[in-house]
Amino acid sequence: MSKNPGKGVTYREAGIDIDAGEAVVDLIKPMVKTTRTPRVMGGLGGFAGLFRLDYNEKLFKRNYRDPVLVSCTDSVGSKMLVGIRMNKLDTVGIDCVAMSVNDMICCGAEPLFFLDYLAVNKVEPERCAAIIKGITSGCQQSNCALLGGETCEMPDVYKPGDFDIVGFSVGVVERQRIIDGSRCEPGDIAIGIGSDGLHANGYGLARQVLFDIATYDVTDKPVELEGATVGEAMLAPTRIYVKCVLDVLAQYKVKHVVKAMAHITGGGLVDNLPRVLPEGLTVRVKRDSWPVPPIFKLIANKGPVDSLEMRRVFNMGVGFVMIVSPAFAESVMNRLSSHGERPFVIGKVKKGGPTLEWN
Amino acid sequence: MSKNPGKGVTYREAGIDIDAGEAVVDLIKPMVKTTRTPRVMGGLGGFAGLFRLDYNEKLFKRNYRDPVLVSCTDSVGSKMLVGIRMNKLDTVGIDCVAMSVNDMICCGAEPLFFLDYLAVNKVEPERCAAIIKGITSGCQQSNCALLGGETCEMPDVYKPGDFDIVGFSVGVVERQRIIDGSRCEPGDIAIGIGSDGLHANGYGLARQVLFDIATYDVTDKPVELEGATVGEAMLAPTRIYVKCVLDVLAQYKVKHVVKAMAHITGGGLVDNLPRVLPEGLTVRVKRDSWPVPPIFKLIANKGPVDSLEMRRVFNMGVGFVMIVSPAFAESVMNRLSSHGERPFVIGKVKKGGPTLEWN
Repeated sequence: MSKNPGKGVTYREAGIDIDAGEAVVDLIKPMVKTTRTPRVMGGLGGFAGLFRLDYNEKLFKRNYRDPVLVSCTDSVGSKMLVGIRMNKLDTVGIDCVAMSVNDMICCGAEPLFFLDYLAVNKVEPERCAAIIKGITSGCQQSNCALLGGETCEMPDVYKPGDFDIVGFSVGVVERQRIIDGSRCEPGDIAIGIGSDGLHANGYGLARQVLFDIATYDVTDKPVELEGATVGEAMLAPTRIYVKCVLDVLAQYKVKHVVKAMAHITGGGLVDNLPRVLPEGLTVRVKRDSWPVPPIFKLIANKGPVDSLEMRRVFNMGVGFVMIVSPAFAESVMNRLSSHGERPFVIGKVKKGGPTLEWN
Repeated sequence: MSKNPGKGVTYREAGIDIDAGEAVVDLIKPMVKTTRTPRVMGGLGGFAGLFRLDYNEKLFKRNYRDPVLVSCTDSVGSKMLVGIRMNKLDTVGIDCVAMSVNDMICCGAEPLFFLDYLAVNKVEPERCAAIIKGITSGCQQSNCALLGGETCEMPDVYKPGDFDIVGFSVGVVERQRIIDGSRCEPGDIAIGIGSDGLHANGYGLARQVLFDIATYDVTDKPVELEGATVGEAMLAPTRIYVKCVLDVLAQYKVKHVVKAMAHITGGGLVDNLPRVLPEGLTVRVKRDSWPVPPIFKLIANKGPVDSLEMRRVFNMGVGFVMIVSPAFAESVMNRLSSHGERPFVIGKVKKGGPTLEWN
């Protein structure tokens, strides 16, 4: 940054490179543009991102009588260490978006925009751009605009090559349409939607088992993974359930078909499903009603990790759950399948709780 | 988390302590409640934070005809390393909120809510709660609700004792009232509002000069600091300009008195003031028109850091700038003073640019 090196201490000599930060902005501009929706105002570079919630021009159908803003934040945890190990950084951004927007849609909200925070040891423009490419791709998959972000260089906090990526999303839901689980009743059906593996939870344990105990390298191909490498299986991006879920909600605007939804993250079905059920109700989960992806079996065997612990740490193949009224279960499942999802009836709501029942 | 240690590998053994995370939630609940405004919906613990933008009950005066959402994100950078060094963690949260909300108000928006992300080596409930106490205090100072947050334990990324804290804020501005600098004209007055020291920028350089070159300890009291320790001067929280700025804006709802605003962060006046001026205009900044706090003089002397570099890295005593029409400058200054701020006429808008002029 200083134009006169040698004349005293400069910011660059203290380890902070502002030009590299500007190079990142130049690299990501075209990617960010692909996420720009007509409601985004202003260009990159202001102090803040601006987003018109609602307006009356004919082009825009969305209008909210009593808009409730919904907001989530999350990081990808230590999944990014797998990306670093594989030197493949362009997918963890998808996970980062997924973790926030999959949480957000649980109450029926539609994602509007996203902001990212990227902290690095050193701003290497190509690496930063790769990470943000994943973010923009996640934004496209969830119909939200990448409204802003911050890249922060902290050589004294992050080790060379390390980084942390944090996401923040904002959405909106019409107040009358908030889904909060209160309409759940015995007999409702729990539909689990297939996950693409670990998603972004349990990497502390997964890395310990696969890298430290089983001493796999990311390029190893254990037979259990049916052709995939350990790295590929571990880095598979989190599925983003926004479009299929919002489509189902849009199908049943008047009827209350979808009664509760849960994003299955850390804590698995065991912790996440009871969170959305009203007091006095539980779900009897039918074991073996969905296929458990190979990566989970590999971890359970190589740990060994006992099955209760597995269920409390990992999603075990179910990334998202919709609790729906029984009369519409089949129709919801068809709708989900038409989006390329893999829905399974994984259980039924019954009196009891708060812990899940398994049979 | 596992109830049967010894039977295989558990998540806790992999370094992740879920109970400690729950202890943090218990500790912070009462603090978070103090930031709760009537528009916040639901309790802690759902998948997302919900916030009613607007409704028609008599109690609530705020209604937006064409609401524009405004969103910002930032961290405190390496300022938290100073807090760690002093074992004083309850103020960096104020900086974290300040960095976001001071950016947000530049376009005239009022902050509504805030989310935090805290990444740590190990979840130590008291330390985490201290950090989040600062966050809630920043939220109170900026009238925004702490709507959600995430605490993430990553022993393989963060060194023992280290952490990173990131903030996201959302606010709203009526579209007709967005302040974007476009009304600036020659003769307008630049009012600088006093900072409380470094705020949260330039810590790479500040730490290098004060700790590495001058070899100060945080408890040292160099005469230049007029009684304060190096640590106290470096850790002074960022001033939050929300209440005073929004009050000034509320005074002149019809007249366009306030034409542009800039939060003076990394890049100093040199980079931040031109960002808010339209093309063809600049500000002639009058040197010595405000007092430079002692910490900046100490850094400049001990580096040595040349004066141009100082101005491009630090706020030099001006934390926020309002560009106002000359007829109202005095009245705006009086209003700011009534809030306990220290406003100074630091320059005047003139043709030229984009770089600032100094005389």
